[in-house]
Amino acid sequence: MTDLDVQDPVAKPDDMIDPAFLAASMIDERAPDIVEALNDVPAELATGILLHLPPDLAIEVLDQPGLDREPELIALMPRDIAAKLLAGVSADRVADIFHQVEEPHSSELLDLLDADTRVNIRRLLQYPKDTAGSIMTTEFASVPSTYTVRQTLDYIRHVESSRETVYAIYVLDPVTKKLVKTVSLRRLITGDPEAPVLSVARPGRVITVTALMDREEVARLISKYDLLAVPVVDHDRVIGIVTVDDVIDAIVQENTEDVQKFGGMEAINEPYMEIGFWQMMRKRGGWLCALFLSELLTASAMQGYEGELEKAIVLTLFIPLIMSSGGNSGSQATSLLIRALALRELEIGDWWRVALREIPNGLALGAMLGLVGIVRISLWQYLGLYDYGEHWMLVALTVGVALIGIVMFGSLTGSMLPFILQRIGFDPASASAPFVATLVDVTGLVIYFSVASLILRGTLL
Amino acid sequence: MTDLDVQDPVAKPDDMIDPAFLAASMIDERAPDIVEALNDVPAELATGILLHLPPDLAIEVLDQPGLDREPELIALMPRDIAAKLLAGVSADRVADIFHQVEEPHSSELLDLLDADTRVNIRRLLQYPKDTAGSIMTTEFASVPSTYTVRQTLDYIRHVESSRETVYAIYVLDPVTKKLVKTVSLRRLITGDPEAPVLSVARPGRVITVTALMDREEVARLISKYDLLAVPVVDHDRVIGIVTVDDVIDAIVQENTEDVQKFGGMEAINEPYMEIGFWQMMRKRGGWLCALFLSELLTASAMQGYEGELEKAIVLTLFIPLIMSSGGNSGSQATSLLIRALALRELEIGDWWRVALREIPNGLALGAMLGLVGIVRISLWQYLGLYDYGEHWMLVALTVGVALIGIVMFGSLTGSMLPFILQRIGFDPASASAPFVATLVDVTGLVIYFSVASLILRGTLL
Repeated sequence: MTDLDVQDPVAKPDDMIDPAFLAASMIDERAPDIVEALNDVPAELATGILLHLPPDLAIEVLDQPGLDREPELIALMPRDIAAKLLAGVSADRVADIFHQVEEPHSSELLDLLDADTRVNIRRLLQYPKDTAGSIMTTEFASVPSTYTVRQTLDYIRHVESSRETVYAIYVLDPVTKKLVKTVSLRRLITGDPEAPVLSVARPGRVITVTALMDREEVARLISKYDLLAVPVVDHDRVIGIVTVDDVIDAIVQENTEDVQKFGGMEAINEPYMEIGFWQMMRKRGGWLCALFLSELLTASAMQGYEGELEKAIVLTLFIPLIMSSGGNSGSQATSLLIRALALRELEIGDWWRVALREIPNGLALGAMLGLVGIVRISLWQYLGLYDYGEHWMLVALTVGVALIGIVMFGSLTGSMLPFILQRIGFDPASASAPFVATLVDVTGLVIYFSVASLILRGTLL
Repeated sequence: MTDLDVQDPVAKPDDMIDPAFLAASMIDERAPDIVEALNDVPAELATGILLHLPPDLAIEVLDQPGLDREPELIALMPRDIAAKLLAGVSADRVADIFHQVEEPHSSELLDLLDADTRVNIRRLLQYPKDTAGSIMTTEFASVPSTYTVRQTLDYIRHVESSRETVYAIYVLDPVTKKLVKTVSLRRLITGDPEAPVLSVARPGRVITVTALMDREEVARLISKYDLLAVPVVDHDRVIGIVTVDDVIDAIVQENTEDVQKFGGMEAINEPYMEIGFWQMMRKRGGWLCALFLSELLTASAMQGYEGELEKAIVLTLFIPLIMSSGGNSGSQATSLLIRALALRELEIGDWWRVALREIPNGLALGAMLGLVGIVRISLWQYLGLYDYGEHWMLVALTVGVALIGIVMFGSLTGSMLPFILQRIGFDPASASAPFVATLVDVTGLVIYFSVASLILRGTLL
């Protein structure tokens, strides 16, 4: 060992790191953990490691949705190995990869696949984003309804390694190929081997989805019926399945989008640190500008009340306070209703029930804040911290009454907005906290100055 | 048929509806659909239907998390039947039911269970809400590592009906009972019947969780490793399992809570229409008051700038506009960071990387809004829609510069708040849009008036 080695034994350039050695150290790891390791190293090294892993494990790694730069890694491999590995990756994941690459690279990649898979992938690629078709896989287990339990089990043993799941087995009509029943592997193994496979089928109707169904709806069905997979059918023929793990990924992604939209921006489906500057500008700037332009109406509204402002400058002191309270109560109501609609606890026809609840809720919450506001103004006046003028009691009353009206209006607006968006064909989850606040701000000003002119006419105004 | 029948054939009182007939019509339905039907009828009728369903189906219905008034339905049943049905319901669901009832009813309910189950349930009830222990079930399949594949399969066939899942089988050390490996049913059926069960075990380490682990973390592991169930271990001994369907329910519930918290209220885990008035006041009023009290600081800040306000009333026109822009950009940044932290894309130590991105983001977004603001003011002045006075260009500049500062400050505050909350031991998801807006409002006013006094000193101020 030389001095140099002792001083800094890890300071080797990247090209001296042996991928074979690293691959060997990963053999006992789980694929998702290997993915995390590969995401942290240069693409060349990651490819080197993949090539040195046992092919089964490499395929499992390529099958993970979390693997970054997957098209690049595949492009760096020798063509024959890439083709062999890709052939083992599940169809829905391969379609995912193709979604990430553009021409002419996607054609090059398609050339790596055998003819059958190519047709398959081409079809999967046609389904729009966020549909059942876009997250389904075509590798499922099906048997004709003439099979016995034993024949079915033999078939499952034979195809097990090439199917995404074998826990749900689809029993098809031998002639029409239409879906007859589903059988679960757990019931299958308890059945009499010589009995027909339909003897262990689940009684009742089969839960199915269509390829164009929204993936959120698919998730809801899988979650409601506690399924491990749901068949995607086209005229009663199974064209693919959506498995529970794909649905979990979809639910988590939808959540992220919902929170981002609720925060007042367009949804971004990428890790924060990987969002480029211009993408960030696009996703945030659009909404920010739209909200700003609407909020410009507050300046116009204020201009309309210029006379009042000049006479009673004390009124300006409470403008931020009053407006934000309306926005806050609206944001609370919106968050409640977005989820109630998403979870199908409420239908669009229930809007009036909600309105009938939100009006008293808003009045009560507004009265609470109004009281706090009146106490605060009275206290400051009484303690001599600030002089609100001779009519301070009327000013306090104006603030209190305006708060009742504005919080009520905020709750009502915030609760109705998701319904209105759904009615006009938008996702109710597009209702964001900033959106509600902006809607409430202009009206809030009008309410405030109307209350003021009623209460203060003849004294301050 | 009498005239009366013809006029209104459906106007029968509830007690004339025959539960046996309704039960018979439901036999081919799925349990979650029966649950929905039962939730819509009076408790007496629902109980009647349950008693007339085949016991297996009744148990499946009682096993559904969506069934309302479950303790009431059970209390309405004859004791011996209630005991028989409850014995079939999975342990995690029974624990759920007990969570809903209070003494002395819970003791009465406990008496219905056999001694073993009672001990079991008592233990499950001890785990805090939102932990792995609170959503785990104790009905799992395990075999000693000395078993062969055939012995294991025979055991699975024998216990299949009484286990929540048999797709994951836990192989235990025959002496210490410690968890050695997991085996999946799909691999088990492909194995040589005479080979030891460990020959088909998954290579690599076993993924386990502890009873006190947060259910969100459990959900992350199940989703990361695409598991159907994860074992809950205590000193390497399996004490229960969490299944993927329980995790989906947990994820959906956490999402609802996250959106509600982001909306600025305490989370409510009940359907909207079932939230009582006082509960609503508690969950919303607390935060609304806290935000209001903080927002009162804006009144104090405004009082401090009273002199400026009197001299340049034109400045007040843009206060709502400017403050809301800061809040909006902050809300966007918070929504991005809440999700990035929840998905573990970022660690707490990454705060400075985020700050280094949000400062330029905020400056660019602010410049964009500032430009729009300057154009708007110039346009109105030019078109004669409003007269901002002789120094209108300086006023426009003040608004533009203040917007840059405030939007940047909003983005920075909004992005740092989740980190700060996590650092001091809170859930980063407690950072709400109203919370950020409130934080930004006071500083926004200070920035606005500071910019104004710099630009307008000697002219308007």
